[in-house]
Amino acid sequence: MSGSVGQVLVTGGGGFIGTALTRLLLSQGIKVRNLDFVPNDFTAPGLRHFQGSFLDHGLTREAMAGVDCLFHLAATTFTREANQNPARDAQENILGTLQLLDYACEAGVKRVVFCSSGGTVYGPTDLDLIPETAPTNPISAYGISKLACEKYMRLYDASSASGVGNGALSTVTLRVANPYGAGQNISKAQGALTTFCHRAVRNEPIEIWGDGTVERDYIDVRDVATALLAAARAVKVSGTEINIGSGRGASLNELVSGITAQLGHAPTVTYRAARSFDVPRNILDIAKAKRALDWEPVIGLRAGIANLLADMQSRPEA
Amino acid sequence: MSGSVGQVLVTGGGGFIGTALTRLLLSQGIKVRNLDFVPNDFTAPGLRHFQGSFLDHGLTREAMAGVDCLFHLAATTFTREANQNPARDAQENILGTLQLLDYACEAGVKRVVFCSSGGTVYGPTDLDLIPETAPTNPISAYGISKLACEKYMRLYDASSASGVGNGALSTVTLRVANPYGAGQNISKAQGALTTFCHRAVRNEPIEIWGDGTVERDYIDVRDVATALLAAARAVKVSGTEINIGSGRGASLNELVSGITAQLGHAPTVTYRAARSFDVPRNILDIAKAKRALDWEPVIGLRAGIANLLADMQSRPEA
Repeated sequence: MSGSVGQVLVTGGGGFIGTALTRLLLSQGIKVRNLDFVPNDFTAPGLRHFQGSFLDHGLTREAMAGVDCLFHLAATTFTREANQNPARDAQENILGTLQLLDYACEAGVKRVVFCSSGGTVYGPTDLDLIPETAPTNPISAYGISKLACEKYMRLYDASSASGVGNGALSTVTLRVANPYGAGQNISKAQGALTTFCHRAVRNEPIEIWGDGTVERDYIDVRDVATALLAAARAVKVSGTEINIGSGRGASLNELVSGITAQLGHAPTVTYRAARSFDVPRNILDIAKAKRALDWEPVIGLRAGIANLLADMQSRPEA
Repeated sequence: MSGSVGQVLVTGGGGFIGTALTRLLLSQGIKVRNLDFVPNDFTAPGLRHFQGSFLDHGLTREAMAGVDCLFHLAATTFTREANQNPARDAQENILGTLQLLDYACEAGVKRVVFCSSGGTVYGPTDLDLIPETAPTNPISAYGISKLACEKYMRLYDASSASGVGNGALSTVTLRVANPYGAGQNISKAQGALTTFCHRAVRNEPIEIWGDGTVERDYIDVRDVATALLAAARAVKVSGTEINIGSGRGASLNELVSGITAQLGHAPTVTYRAARSFDVPRNILDIAKAKRALDWEPVIGLRAGIANLLADMQSRPEA
């Protein structure tokens, strides 16, 4: 990559992270093609939609023509669904991603930026901050398929000596922590913070599994978008993984405090039995992202919560 | 596992490692079912063949009935073929293994011992000895699919909190170094040492890519078989990976020296350009196997070479 990004394709472009990325790219004058299974009525100059699956070769070939950077954000499952049917998850997401890499080689794409999951690929850890070199022992099918895709990204990278791919493809994986923000799908229970805000503005009780001390790394989706763009432009990151997070942990109880501070009153919280698959702590070390991408998150948790609550209050029907 | 092993099923039971394992199991009075795509004319009391693919549910269900331990050794590809078609490799070996795990749960199998590849899952390393906790960055599709299968083994393990599987399945992965010995397939170029011996006894030149200093961890297949049986019986290894190797490195030039010492004359060696996908060094740390399996290799390199050469000389038609 020369550092310049012209025409891009975003799989899952109509999703939560995809929408934030699309808005950022358009604001930078970058032409965007969105490939998404879900119909999308967001229109803007420079934006073109391709409705369908990233598994569809005909559609993907059409969408990829002339593209120099592919952001692969699409996945067909979430954590719970993947564990219910690991084979389906592997079939669609591992095989589908491999196929997409083949399509990208065929189309002459220069860089693929793959969105992996910093919250699931590492699995349980005692580390205060998790660097990219930490062991990767996912305890969910979702994390396993993301990890397998990461390895295929490396394999197809131009620097690989494997003979796989076309020798010109450069790949980068971002291991994204827990993104939150306006536009996140509540019904799919993607993110604790968004769900908490949604319940708080409706005066519904917030449900916490365990005692609320479980710590996670929450990052505003707009900060994720700037990281994705930085990864598309960065030159010396090919064939590696980079953590993208806030750099600090927040407990579920801290999220509630942040919401309380913003709303001016405390939401009702219902504590339920801890779930066995929740690891107690997961905070990413983002030193590599700062160094290699010259990127850092700029939206703090309080500011992010304020933005999210304001968005929800302005669109009560959403 | 109680430590006792009654009826077992071996996928790939007619292959190189599978045959050595079958002989060992039978010698211990354990009933063996072999599932292999290739016809097998080896008969013995207590041995039953099931000819076909491990992907065939009907056949696998029949073969698994009443089995308490499954050794999953079958793979449909080798390194070269997998890199030529990573999607096929993933489809057959990742998806196929996942499916086999589902079949094993359905059949009430108690333990699965999975044969992974210590030579490929780690990828390039500067470590003198590679422990199981080393980074796993395979540079071949074969290594990636093995690694993905290892992670699914963990997921299905009874100790997992994922909710995947039947909660009663215990799994162990053995990361086997470079096995060699009588019965290894020459045409598939599986192992350098077996190929070297085969050429030496025929007075054909031995081909070495590079200067012959590339070091690997060669282990006699009979030592691999005792490790597999120990893994079936061990109680505290569930849901983990264990390296199985000789514990020491040997260069390609040392293999030639060993053959020379045994034959009493030096074979012709042709040195060719180094191959980019050969990592310079790959020696496994086997401390965990010694501790957790109470196992160690007993056949030294010289003794192994002597046995291999004797076998080849006694069966010149093979």
